[in-house]
Amino acid sequence: MSEFDTDTAVTPVGDGTYTATVTDRWNAISDRPNGGHLMAIMLRALGAELPQPDPLVTSAFFLRPAQVGPVTVHTSLTRAGRRISTGEARLTQDGKDLVRLTASYLDFGQTSGRTAMLEQAPDLPAPADCVNPLAKGGVPGVTIADRFEFRYAEVPGWFLGKPGESGTSEFWVRFADGREPDGLALAALVDSAAPAVLDFGVLNSSTIELTVHLRARPAPGWLACRVSTRYLIEGLHEEDFEVWDSKGSLVAQSRQLGLITER
Amino acid sequence: MSEFDTDTAVTPVGDGTYTATVTDRWNAISDRPNGGHLMAIMLRALGAELPQPDPLVTSAFFLRPAQVGPVTVHTSLTRAGRRISTGEARLTQDGKDLVRLTASYLDFGQTSGRTAMLEQAPDLPAPADCVNPLAKGGVPGVTIADRFEFRYAEVPGWFLGKPGESGTSEFWVRFADGREPDGLALAALVDSAAPAVLDFGVLNSSTIELTVHLRARPAPGWLACRVSTRYLIEGLHEEDFEVWDSKGSLVAQSRQLGLITER
Repeated sequence: MSEFDTDTAVTPVGDGTYTATVTDRWNAISDRPNGGHLMAIMLRALGAELPQPDPLVTSAFFLRPAQVGPVTVHTSLTRAGRRISTGEARLTQDGKDLVRLTASYLDFGQTSGRTAMLEQAPDLPAPADCVNPLAKGGVPGVTIADRFEFRYAEVPGWFLGKPGESGTSEFWVRFADGREPDGLALAALVDSAAPAVLDFGVLNSSTIELTVHLRARPAPGWLACRVSTRYLIEGLHEEDFEVWDSKGSLVAQSRQLGLITER
Repeated sequence: MSEFDTDTAVTPVGDGTYTATVTDRWNAISDRPNGGHLMAIMLRALGAELPQPDPLVTSAFFLRPAQVGPVTVHTSLTRAGRRISTGEARLTQDGKDLVRLTASYLDFGQTSGRTAMLEQAPDLPAPADCVNPLAKGGVPGVTIADRFEFRYAEVPGWFLGKPGESGTSEFWVRFADGREPDGLALAALVDSAAPAVLDFGVLNSSTIELTVHLRARPAPGWLACRVSTRYLIEGLHEEDFEVWDSKGSLVAQSRQLGLITER
């Protein structure tokens, strides 16, 4: 089983409650488990309770940082509909609420209607023609960087200590162990890359809230990402994230509100 | 008292529960009360329960359409923090859940940190030099259009039956009765204008989920808005909304996931 599937496995213990274990393989810059990974654990539990398969839209509020170790996910069904169902989940550790999440699911096999695309996928060289900024090794403590492979047209300035203040970057990503993407993985992925705000020379950013829209089930292969922060105001910033699959389809779109930590 | 304050008034009935009345003055294209207006009622109740004054980030899931008439808002405190507090609210009518909302509040009087703006406010002519597309009267049934004044550089194509398929529009807005904007009003406003997706010739769009980030308290006066839909995929689309105040500050940013109704 893949690292992602192993580390997002949940065990039902009755009444919509699940247990899981947060491993040390998804730690972010803060040396704490990544919020997107916690969200994937919660969506795996919630998805087991709802009739439709695809987490169309998820909103998560991050109340307290998690520690590596056991967690409990409490789910509740808000509304089961014919097309769309909605549920809620709480992730707790040592009796404290860490994350609150609401999500609506549907079945992408049943959607139909008009399509109109006004922007295109990132215009990146093929992954084989791109550079791997972590080719000489990962970032100490940032274990999540070992779970993915990233490919950039060129090494980002902030990575070399020269922030560009462009607030935007584009890159390829896939799981390092070859697991193919799906909706659950996309929900985690949108929070798994380096924050765009690092391009302003800040140390880190903590997510207050993260909303993810899945737009289609992804095809196998590399995913092309576009991440941007346009407005940093008194330490608070949005981060927009798009994920396009190997066939050129937009498969996920997210926005989070973050609070920076200065160096 | 202003129309907005009158129609978002809530009455505490104990245990974090509030009653309110949805009037017929905020009906949208569907002839049903506008979702943003329901959100403002819920935030007024939740704000009375939380220590900080400003609804920094709100996510609302719309489960069922509301009818004009009495509603109940059930609030619960999720976490009261020193800087940020989070709570949840349910809006019910006739015993059914219509909207679920989670929000984090802070005090914009206490924020500090770096600011970096990579994009500017909409480049619109002064409101007096713009056109009012509703100058000859409102839209039958769409009472919410009478609550605001809108000013466009030119009348939007879709309004004349000639959709431009640009998916973007920019305009000025203010309350028709002169009420000045605040955070609560901005949370309603981002859902109160014509959906950008009308520019594709569709009849209407229903909101599945709406996330609003308040970025600052707005100055008095006209608000400049930028609304866009870039990706319509099998009937589902995002809508991004920015609101800039009369001093040129970004004051709100929102994204919703909507489902179109074709003509």
